[in-house]
Amino acid sequence: MIQPWPVLRSQTLTNYRIFRVRQDFKVSPRTGTEHDFYVTDCPDWVNVIATTPEGHLVMVEQFRHGTNSIDMEIPGGVMDPHETDPVAAGLRELREETGFTGERARVLSRTRPNPAFMSNTCHTILVENCRHTHEVELDLAEDVRTYVKPWEEVACLLNNGAIPHSLVTLALHEYQAFRRRTGAGC
Amino acid sequence: MIQPWPVLRSQTLTNYRIFRVRQDFKVSPRTGTEHDFYVTDCPDWVNVIATTPEGHLVMVEQFRHGTNSIDMEIPGGVMDPHETDPVAAGLRELREETGFTGERARVLSRTRPNPAFMSNTCHTILVENCRHTHEVELDLAEDVRTYVKPWEEVACLLNNGAIPHSLVTLALHEYQAFRRRTGAGC
Repeated sequence: MIQPWPVLRSQTLTNYRIFRVRQDFKVSPRTGTEHDFYVTDCPDWVNVIATTPEGHLVMVEQFRHGTNSIDMEIPGGVMDPHETDPVAAGLRELREETGFTGERARVLSRTRPNPAFMSNTCHTILVENCRHTHEVELDLAEDVRTYVKPWEEVACLLNNGAIPHSLVTLALHEYQAFRRRTGAGC
Repeated sequence: MIQPWPVLRSQTLTNYRIFRVRQDFKVSPRTGTEHDFYVTDCPDWVNVIATTPEGHLVMVEQFRHGTNSIDMEIPGGVMDPHETDPVAAGLRELREETGFTGERARVLSRTRPNPAFMSNTCHTILVENCRHTHEVELDLAEDVRTYVKPWEEVACLLNNGAIPHSLVTLALHEYQAFRRRTGAGC
């Protein structure tokens, strides 16, 4: 049986604003040898599947600084330090990035972005009956363009590998599975 | 239209073995203001969908140091510095972690783990007709238990949210879509 690794000691090394790097020293339960592991601690993230009364999806296009590319995604972002409810965080990100608000907001799924070296969770929030009701609130370092796309068009992007971000692709696959379960079609 | 952000200057800050942290200074094309962005540079990663002649999947259970949890996943890992072919890297990881080798290895899909602040790509490799032919080769810091599971059991784990790792969950969704396209069933 696979056993957990006891932690001998741990130290936070550096704070890079969007994540902190920690070094954990542990003992292998299999070999008894000591090893160190770097872990990045990020706040939890939220991604938002926002559907309109017509069943279309709210999508965002933005420049991404990790890959230096302009990508099609769904709204989302980082939970604020004071936020404890991922549903509220998803509604905030949706409103700030796109000006859309909606109803029946709830958690569709949860995932761990990378259990190998990241400690956080990403929550996918489903919001229905979304309408454009507010001005967008972008900070100086953001530039977001909003689209409302029929599901068939989003599914086509998904099937053609045209959604680069793994967590967005995963959220859309999970929404597609939800549509199949609830009889809304593929 | 969304525009790319010109890079003013860039510096590598720290090497944490499994990733390096870089700081890029850029100018917003919308506001003209200067901002800095932290980026983690990792080698590319590979995940492996390994199927047996019976259509079962090779799965691995291991302790994960980011989340301190024992997780069910598919084989995979980090491409070595000298490796340029993700298919060869996937076959190597499959053999080292599980002792399985197979045929018709090819790229099933590619994704960007996190375009917001990570520069690398994760490749999902499909390998068919897999058989246990080699001894496993674990290093001192690894402890991996191999399972061969019918697809229906894996699909059940997938639908129940019992596969924590986002990139593994995504790979399994993409394999499920491949099965639907090729008539192998859901």
